[in-house]
Amino acid sequence: MGHRRFELITLGTGAALPARGRHPSAQLLIVHEEPYLIDCGEGTQERLRSIGANFMRIGHVFISHLHGDHYLGLMGLISSMHLMGRTARLHVHGPAELRGIIDVQLRASQTYLRYPLEFHAIEPLSGAVAWQDARVKVSLLALRHRIPCTGFVFEETPALRSLRPEALRSVPTFMRARVKAGEDLQLPDGTVLPNSALTHAPPPPRRYAYCSDTAFAPELLPFIHGVDLLYHEATFTSQMARRARETMHSTAAEAARMALDAGAGRLLLGHFSSRYKSAAELLAEALPIFPNTELSEEGRGYPVIERSAV
Amino acid sequence: MGHRRFELITLGTGAALPARGRHPSAQLLIVHEEPYLIDCGEGTQERLRSIGANFMRIGHVFISHLHGDHYLGLMGLISSMHLMGRTARLHVHGPAELRGIIDVQLRASQTYLRYPLEFHAIEPLSGAVAWQDARVKVSLLALRHRIPCTGFVFEETPALRSLRPEALRSVPTFMRARVKAGEDLQLPDGTVLPNSALTHAPPPPRRYAYCSDTAFAPELLPFIHGVDLLYHEATFTSQMARRARETMHSTAAEAARMALDAGAGRLLLGHFSSRYKSAAELLAEALPIFPNTELSEEGRGYPVIERSAV
Repeated sequence: MGHRRFELITLGTGAALPARGRHPSAQLLIVHEEPYLIDCGEGTQERLRSIGANFMRIGHVFISHLHGDHYLGLMGLISSMHLMGRTARLHVHGPAELRGIIDVQLRASQTYLRYPLEFHAIEPLSGAVAWQDARVKVSLLALRHRIPCTGFVFEETPALRSLRPEALRSVPTFMRARVKAGEDLQLPDGTVLPNSALTHAPPPPRRYAYCSDTAFAPELLPFIHGVDLLYHEATFTSQMARRARETMHSTAAEAARMALDAGAGRLLLGHFSSRYKSAAELLAEALPIFPNTELSEEGRGYPVIERSAV
Repeated sequence: MGHRRFELITLGTGAALPARGRHPSAQLLIVHEEPYLIDCGEGTQERLRSIGANFMRIGHVFISHLHGDHYLGLMGLISSMHLMGRTARLHVHGPAELRGIIDVQLRASQTYLRYPLEFHAIEPLSGAVAWQDARVKVSLLALRHRIPCTGFVFEETPALRSLRPEALRSVPTFMRARVKAGEDLQLPDGTVLPNSALTHAPPPPRRYAYCSDTAFAPELLPFIHGVDLLYHEATFTSQMARRARETMHSTAAEAARMALDAGAGRLLLGHFSSRYKSAAELLAEALPIFPNTELSEEGRGYPVIERSAV
């Protein structure tokens, strides 16, 4: 069951000032075919259309913080879902103030949503579980930024154990679900076959971590240890380290150091400052520290591959 | 002086639901080289970049109403101006509630703008003058919509009178400004040359009217009588007249009827419903009623040409 789709699609790779063809932060994370939206900068609904995503299927939006480049597209998305006749519940997870920002704009436009919008206030508290459903568990990261800012760790729900081919005959059909869930099997004659003889363990659940926006924050390492894919902001190169500290952003070298120290499988850089015409120099800085680094590209998909398979 | 640039650039021609490659409402009106922004749907800053406009030069933004497709790009624009180091004052004219919507978002992001943002609350009151400067006078239109909604009439400041070639010798250089402003000329011998003998009247000031969003509203006619260019929303065809009435929008036929009855020079249609793949059927409906009709195209410029010259 390691083949269930778990894939990140980066929609925006720019920083606060959208320029050079880059868009503000937004990501679509597909977990077992269900889309979760992470951040929602201005124009996200158009970005979603451009990749052919059916955004009506998005059930959850996670907003890291209230700098405009991470949430200004949310009202437009909420409004378009309404106009397109959505009736399914939409969960919005974000800083408490976001609820008021949404409400005041719905009131001003006298919009009465046809679907329930359920708001979940989150606070940056590393390790706290913000959401869990049949596919995924989402826990939080206390990022270091100028305003309260929360990162996210998405961990897929473990697959069931799989029956060993040689055990197929011993396990009656009606018992298979329970055996796959881990139960031992008692035969009619009273013999007990231990589960481990009947099944394989599933692959370990894959994890994706989103760290944007943040200064270098090694205190996060225990919470992102061993993630299969780490998205970490890399707004500047080390030449701009001072500016990075002032604005509470990271350099590409710091992002790579985080991936290295966390033992991450892969590192994806993003949130590039508009001062960089090409992000190649950011990549060049990260690669010697953490070779398994890539630049995020808008509209491209990055499968979350089990770390040991990378 | 009829050649001073007075030109409309339509940036978005879509209605509430951005789709079919159309963007939400926004227009850049250039009056004597100065850009004024009318409405600011999501993504307007990107639209401005795409046409190569220097949006730092925008001194005034006029927001018709608080449906998202007319203002959700404003916070991003305000924020980008800040990040790009703007120091010049920005005037925002819009419904009173807009001020609170801006303020709550600046507070949430802890943004302290480096430039003064001056907010002017407007109410839909036809004929009221909302702004006047050296280039333009902006008066208001009470549109008919589901929430308070204001249209705008932009009238250029009349040019000075121009000296008749045959009078050039009679008017000493130091007197020319006063003669162009309309004064008679007294010669050293006491003779008075009447101004009309020395100068030509300037062309009549050109006017542009923006009517979006609105149901058919003939009570506006006295206020837009004789405008050189009328932008009127045409969300639907007459087949959807009932839907137009329910949602307080206009059909293309109604837009054309307004242009005809106002004696407008040209009519520009926009705010096309996403149900129309092509806006050609909207044009086809308007043309028999008002032949001087065009569809607005995103990124295209429409000079405001004196009505009598059309």
